[in-house]
Amino acid sequence: MLCKSRNASLVNIKKKKLKNILLELEYDGTNYKGWQIQRGKSRHLKQITIQETLEDVLGKILRQKVTLIGSGRTDAGVHAKSQYANFKTSSFLTLDKLKKALNSLLPKDIRVKSIKEVNIKFHARYAAKSKTYRYAILNRDFNSAFLHRYIFHVIKPLDLKLMQQESKVLLGQHDFRSFQATDKKKDNSIRTIKKITFKKRNKMIYIDIEADGFLYNMVRNIVGTLIEIGRGKVSPGSLRRVLKAKDRKLAGPTAPAKGLSLLRVNYK
Amino acid sequence: MLCKSRNASLVNIKKKKLKNILLELEYDGTNYKGWQIQRGKSRHLKQITIQETLEDVLGKILRQKVTLIGSGRTDAGVHAKSQYANFKTSSFLTLDKLKKALNSLLPKDIRVKSIKEVNIKFHARYAAKSKTYRYAILNRDFNSAFLHRYIFHVIKPLDLKLMQQESKVLLGQHDFRSFQATDKKKDNSIRTIKKITFKKRNKMIYIDIEADGFLYNMVRNIVGTLIEIGRGKVSPGSLRRVLKAKDRKLAGPTAPAKGLSLLRVNYK
Repeated sequence: MLCKSRNASLVNIKKKKLKNILLELEYDGTNYKGWQIQRGKSRHLKQITIQETLEDVLGKILRQKVTLIGSGRTDAGVHAKSQYANFKTSSFLTLDKLKKALNSLLPKDIRVKSIKEVNIKFHARYAAKSKTYRYAILNRDFNSAFLHRYIFHVIKPLDLKLMQQESKVLLGQHDFRSFQATDKKKDNSIRTIKKITFKKRNKMIYIDIEADGFLYNMVRNIVGTLIEIGRGKVSPGSLRRVLKAKDRKLAGPTAPAKGLSLLRVNYK
Repeated sequence: MLCKSRNASLVNIKKKKLKNILLELEYDGTNYKGWQIQRGKSRHLKQITIQETLEDVLGKILRQKVTLIGSGRTDAGVHAKSQYANFKTSSFLTLDKLKKALNSLLPKDIRVKSIKEVNIKFHARYAAKSKTYRYAILNRDFNSAFLHRYIFHVIKPLDLKLMQQESKVLLGQHDFRSFQATDKKKDNSIRTIKKITFKKRNKMIYIDIEADGFLYNMVRNIVGTLIEIGRGKVSPGSLRRVLKAKDRKLAGPTAPAKGLSLLRVNYK
């Protein structure tokens, strides 16, 4: 009887040791159907999701079912230079060993950059104050033999100054309905863009957009419209008109997923 | 009769218009069996060579058999940031159109960076004064989800200063037999290393080696030995001993092909 009660208290101690682990990840999204598991769907398809791949490997290492909470979803084919996700576990495995095990079992296109224990109440999605996405455009006559998976190749010279000037209208709180994927409409399409920066390095153009949240395809639709402006296909002032119209049909085409990366998640 | 002779002279004019075209290329060597066609061999294998791929596409565009002369071969799995190759043609196609046609028909991992007409006597191999190869090492605890095809991942911290100090013994003219692939020995293993530079950017280490010529696996064997030194596995002064010994068995392991790129071909 004594033995039994000691065992029971050990179980209790173990149960109390539930830890909240936060992973920082990077991934090449080329071969994935985005971040989020589509329950009952993706298993039937050839392509799986990043979340699913990670949960499978975590489950094998920790020998328990793990549910990951990502800072947010990234769409099919979109990459992440820094994505965060947390999960709870009662495992005694050290963080160093867990990181090593993950990086040795995960496919090469998903890496764990860092790992730490966080407050048990921390929630990777709710705690995210804002996110920064980067869109990469290679603006020259030939694509790159090395980077073609991670960039959008635009041959026609882009007027970067004009794009930058025009983009200012997007700053602040707006109804971004015009830049929302038509098949995935959300009731609330009001978001706040905090910052848009343009960088040019050799022939690469990086457009970084920080916002408190993003609608489906919002960055890709904004960039598609900005490229039309940069190519001189639409008149100046058109971005303001598209934004005000709240009509997806007026915006430019959706820039391809491969040029887009989640660059940073900004926590409180 | 008149017509016949006019046609004949036109043919002569066309024949006189033989042009020598120089291509600047970049390629991701991951899926290729190196640069050079191994006549009668590679066709039976799944993997083809860069030269073969280019000659096939050039043949289709120009409707004539084309023989490419590369500045030198790159080995299986080795990349090129700038490789040169010339060929002769009597085609009237403009260089701009030829570049566009090549980049639209070539696989994504081979790109034509530039194209120009050169003196009819120019020979991409004979005219090359020296070449610079770059070896890329990622020195941190996790590999890159994006760059793993182009780098060698070394977890254990490398003593870059020591590697740099030790590498100086390689400068100048030496018999590099110790760093030559054992199965492909050349009679003359004397080469001149003109420059070795080490660069560090974040966790990436670039080792650039310029020489008048390279033996099979020479850079990869030198880098493999330098990594052993950087990891503290061999005592200082060992590179000098390996070089003097002229014995491949004494050098370190061969660093993997994926970390190596032909960076520059230096012409007179």
